[in-house]
Amino acid sequence: MDTRQQLYRDMDPHNLTPLWEVLHALVPPRPNTPCIPALWKYDEVRPFLLRAGAAITAEEAVRRVLILENPKLRGQSAATQSLYAGLQLILPGEIAPSHRHTQSALRFIVEGSGAWTAVDGERTTMRPGDFIITPSWTWHDHGSEADGPVVWLDGLDIPMVRFFDAGFAQNSVGRSQQVARPEGTSFSRFGHNMAPVRHEAPYGATSPIFSYPYERSREALEQLERQAPVDEWDGVKLRYVNPLTGGSPMPTMATFLQKLPKGFSGKPWRQTDGAVYSVVEGSGEVLITHGGEEWRYAFGPRDHFVVPSWHTARLASGPGCVLFSFSDRPVHQALGIHTEERLS
Amino acid sequence: MDTRQQLYRDMDPHNLTPLWEVLHALVPPRPNTPCIPALWKYDEVRPFLLRAGAAITAEEAVRRVLILENPKLRGQSAATQSLYAGLQLILPGEIAPSHRHTQSALRFIVEGSGAWTAVDGERTTMRPGDFIITPSWTWHDHGSEADGPVVWLDGLDIPMVRFFDAGFAQNSVGRSQQVARPEGTSFSRFGHNMAPVRHEAPYGATSPIFSYPYERSREALEQLERQAPVDEWDGVKLRYVNPLTGGSPMPTMATFLQKLPKGFSGKPWRQTDGAVYSVVEGSGEVLITHGGEEWRYAFGPRDHFVVPSWHTARLASGPGCVLFSFSDRPVHQALGIHTEERLS
Amino acid sequence: MDTRQQLYRDMDPHNLTPLWEVLHALVPPRPNTPCIPALWKYDEVRPFLLRAGAAITAEEAVRRVLILENPKLRGQSAATQSLYAGLQLILPGEIAPSHRHTQSALRFIVEGSGAWTAVDGERTTMRPGDFIITPSWTWHDHGSEADGPVVWLDGLDIPMVRFFDAGFAQNSVGRSQQVARPEGTSFSRFGHNMAPVRHEAPYGATSPIFSYPYERSREALEQLERQAPVDEWDGVKLRYVNPLTGGSPMPTMATFLQKLPKGFSGKPWRQTDGAVYSVVEGSGEVLITHGGEEWRYAFGPRDHFVVPSWHTARLASGPGCVLFSFSDRPVHQALGIHTEERLS
Amino acid sequence: MDTRQQLYRDMDPHNLTPLWEVLHALVPPRPNTPCIPALWKYDEVRPFLLRAGAAITAEEAVRRVLILENPKLRGQSAATQSLYAGLQLILPGEIAPSHRHTQSALRFIVEGSGAWTAVDGERTTMRPGDFIITPSWTWHDHGSEADGPVVWLDGLDIPMVRFFDAGFAQNSVGRSQQVARPEGTSFSRFGHNMAPVRHEAPYGATSPIFSYPYERSREALEQLERQAPVDEWDGVKLRYVNPLTGGSPMPTMATFLQKLPKGFSGKPWRQTDGAVYSVVEGSGEVLITHGGEEWRYAFGPRDHFVVPSWHTARLASGPGCVLFSFSDRPVHQALGIHTEERLS
Repeated sequence: MDTRQQLYRDMDPHNLTPLWEVLHALVPPRPNTPCIPALWKYDEVRPFLLRAGAAITAEEAVRRVLILENPKLRGQSAATQSLYAGLQLILPGEIAPSHRHTQSALRFIVEGSGAWTAVDGERTTMRPGDFIITPSWTWHDHGSEADGPVVWLDGLDIPMVRFFDAGFAQNSVGRSQQVARPEGTSFSRFGHNMAPVRHEAPYGATSPIFSYPYERSREALEQLERQAPVDEWDGVKLRYVNPLTGGSPMPTMATFLQKLPKGFSGKPWRQTDGAVYSVVEGSGEVLITHGGEEWRYAFGPRDHFVVPSWHTARLASGPGCVLFSFSDRPVHQALGIHTEERLS
Repeated sequence: MDTRQQLYRDMDPHNLTPLWEVLHALVPPRPNTPCIPALWKYDEVRPFLLRAGAAITAEEAVRRVLILENPKLRGQSAATQSLYAGLQLILPGEIAPSHRHTQSALRFIVEGSGAWTAVDGERTTMRPGDFIITPSWTWHDHGSEADGPVVWLDGLDIPMVRFFDAGFAQNSVGRSQQVARPEGTSFSRFGHNMAPVRHEAPYGATSPIFSYPYERSREALEQLERQAPVDEWDGVKLRYVNPLTGGSPMPTMATFLQKLPKGFSGKPWRQTDGAVYSVVEGSGEVLITHGGEEWRYAFGPRDHFVVPSWHTARLASGPGCVLFSFSDRPVHQALGIHTEERLS
Repeated sequence: MDTRQQLYRDMDPHNLTPLWEVLHALVPPRPNTPCIPALWKYDEVRPFLLRAGAAITAEEAVRRVLILENPKLRGQSAATQSLYAGLQLILPGEIAPSHRHTQSALRFIVEGSGAWTAVDGERTTMRPGDFIITPSWTWHDHGSEADGPVVWLDGLDIPMVRFFDAGFAQNSVGRSQQVARPEGTSFSRFGHNMAPVRHEAPYGATSPIFSYPYERSREALEQLERQAPVDEWDGVKLRYVNPLTGGSPMPTMATFLQKLPKGFSGKPWRQTDGAVYSVVEGSGEVLITHGGEEWRYAFGPRDHFVVPSWHTARLASGPGCVLFSFSDRPVHQALGIHTEERLS
Repeated sequence: MDTRQQLYRDMDPHNLTPLWEVLHALVPPRPNTPCIPALWKYDEVRPFLLRAGAAITAEEAVRRVLILENPKLRGQSAATQSLYAGLQLILPGEIAPSHRHTQSALRFIVEGSGAWTAVDGERTTMRPGDFIITPSWTWHDHGSEADGPVVWLDGLDIPMVRFFDAGFAQNSVGRSQQVARPEGTSFSRFGHNMAPVRHEAPYGATSPIFSYPYERSREALEQLERQAPVDEWDGVKLRYVNPLTGGSPMPTMATFLQKLPKGFSGKPWRQTDGAVYSVVEGSGEVLITHGGEEWRYAFGPRDHFVVPSWHTARLASGPGCVLFSFSDRPVHQALGIHTEERLS
């Protein structure tokens, strides 16, 4: 055995490892995510959701969700290294008990109307395309008064909070929380480019608006499509903002809504924040390339897909479409490590 | 002549003055504004506005405005020590030439629909109750396609910028600026709790929204009146926000809209920021007291009044009313000198 | 009388004034301060200070200060429109009673060592060139254990706080406050590019450091003179910072220390913030021009002069010199109205 | 096979996983880090460092570092889940080639004087106890003109940047960078509670000061020990600050220096941010407990140890000691997930 091997062997019991053997992997020339792109066709996922609905009760299941796992991160409950995504089903009459946790959550409504989520004493009724927030450490529960299944996309920062070893959670004793104020109060207070004269930000760095209704968000996109030039990479794309800061709705996740006009054929880009997409309306195609590999996904309503970090992607749509997406961009920005390139 | 008088006389030519003779006035135990309350009844002001319309052309007058001068600050073009307020008239077909200045301006529409203001290439149509911003150093002009007179309240930080010796202004060569983008583009970009993905704040610390339509602002107040407890001092009151910061729409002025419910009889308060009020709808009464004096104003639609710094005020309304107001609060806050008291 | 004059006369009792008659003055094309440059030679001022020391006791005088009044603002206790400056004398054994006020104060020590100021229970010994802060609304008092007269420059935001009608003041019952912690504690906590792990900013937006000793500040300038290129306008100039924000030490005033190297002949500049200078060491010349007028001041140690807003100024020094200065720049920046030009 | 198992099996190929089977682990009631405490005695590590010095050249090794791996994260080059720590050796005359990367680095000098690190064209000489920063994406290299071995602690955010898939790196063509300005220039510019009048923050959110000399930091601690009450948990503890923001020196890592007075016996605490400690002077003991387990480490000069997230720890010292530490606290704070408890 040569000197080095002997050294490695001798120091190993002391929890010492030679940097020079691993430096290249530790400090790679460019991002080298273990994730790969993935697509979940709603036609394929929906039957499993319904089977899950039959197989277990809401109460038993607590949260009846199918996790969208990145194919290269199986067993880690992660869509990208830092983000969790899942599709949740709630059936008519069901009520999920109340709990809270340090993890922040977003809900993006995929199918069905009439379910509700309650945050901190205020209910919000869910309609397809609505983007709803559960701020960190707020009591929340769900229920459904719909007459059919309701499905939404859950996006959480679970892997991040796990990575930073900072998760706390509590279950409430009762089934669901008391309603403390009428539906829409938070939006009336903060949603109209106005705010109460005297207030603390009720949820710290998280938006005081629980619900960004699709009706309003889509209206903004449609107006902009008529009013302003279409971006050659993104079509017409807006980010949701926390109206008390101008920043992202949650400190850990950014959310976006974009409209690809009819016949749009976008230019390619790449960015360090990996993103999860949910197709709201219409259909189109995403082409992702990385390291000589290529993924080409045709997507339709309610399909979901992942564009990992530093993968080159481009979007196209014949009939036009609307896409919701979320990523960990605000963390990249807070840490000073966000990079993006718009290619031509 | 005693020693002191001799000293004062000797040093006076050297631009030296004894502090001990003026200390009490310089550092008073509490704010001691030279301003007093004032009321402008619209019924009395309107005829003067129309006479001004007849007496001079828009072009000649450049800005046909009657300045609301505080009775104790006559000749200073000031409603309070730091704020300018005026009522501007524009007649059908008139167009005011374009200019820009470091002073920030707000317009609050008092009477008439169909006039427009253009900021940085984007027009905004004016309707009663709309709150419109002209950011510092942006080209702006006005015109009217209405079929009758249009009147708005101008609120500017002119006295502040004069006090800090920081005013610049330019007139454009042409009559009015080119329209660069459709009406409503700024609101589509920033008004729906969303924002473009890639943007600089287009006007620095000033809100990227030019126009806060009354329709939306009033809707927020009405919803809150139903949803939440009425504040015992303010009724239902919201401040307008810059959605990119959560702060005031301009760095120099805060703006507010409040609804006093039917039969409201408010508690008294005082604050260091003096405020100018514009009555939008309904009628009521304000009672102001200070240093043993009392001012009691009954107000109706389109009336204007001033509540000076550290004067105790209370509001009441039998039929209910809506009030717009603006003050220099953000400056007090930036300088760390804002104080308010809610009395009982 | 013509129509207009009749209109003006009729509306005058209603506190209405025509904008079009005053617009040009209200919104000038460039800053047009009423202030002019001024110089106070210490040789001329000092005898008045000593006469003031003889004429009145410290107790009687409360604050024995000669106000440096701008020649065009006589009677307003102002060096520029927004800034107060005065020279304060304290004699051996004197103690000034404790008080507090919303106005922020800076002390820059001009002559003598051994006096002290106490802020919020902590004393600071004064030495020439030290820059000391009295944060808004903190109890403070002064005393002297020196064996000769001690003189310092007082810089306050008195005119600003008066303009915004936001001044409060209190006198304490006792003569001076209890010492609550050893001298230097605040500097130990915050002065070494470190800070306590758990703390609130003890004085809000004001620096937690009371005293910036000349010894350290001068050392920084001298090192930079050797290490880095000399600025063609400023020589070697640093601004004092609040180490908890990176901003100015007080929200209302910026402070600067600069060294003009031997033989420095600076380029001209102008800026909207007017400034008061105190000469610490050495001698030189300032040339100020504005609107066709010219002021040329030769200055030596302990002289003071004012460069008003938007006056063109240039500095020169044969033997080299050190200058302290303060201005209202942070307010200009907070209000978005700061402008400066470096001319060649 | 029951219904559920059949469902799991059927959906598995679709990258779908049932949340309800893993929910408890994903959202634990309290932080449940895989890390455990660890101690590296310098007496045991130093011989391996010297053997590494003999076994490989600096050039060959690029970075001759022994990584301190958490015993439960072997193979991951991590001291905690988010932090990298290593001990680096540089021998007389060696020069490491220049490179840069998005990862931020801190160096804390453990043994030997006379080595240097250069950042962005400015060299800093290393002395024991100095804390030195390599900001993200700045060119840096090291060399030694010492006459013996020099060892420092490297702390990096490598695991974080890997987790967020955001790492870029470049090697320079030449061996080491040109010196662009004298040693100490950055400190002269920003280290004395002053800053250049006109500057951008040269390294974004990272401190413009490369080097926080031990001499000054220790002086602050010693003064505070005399001036202020000793904290019952921490002794006398200060955090290093970025003087342009008041925040942590790097956006990803906080750094601390603390002095335990003679005979100190501290109270226990726990916090979500795991920390790495480096003993500068003196000796003492740390007692860590978690989940019924207990670790008791006696430490002396140059020893290193890890206190993982949410482990209860207490410090004691007979003769007194000085400890440097770093953690990922600023990320916890930016993400709104920092929690700490001080127990009694």
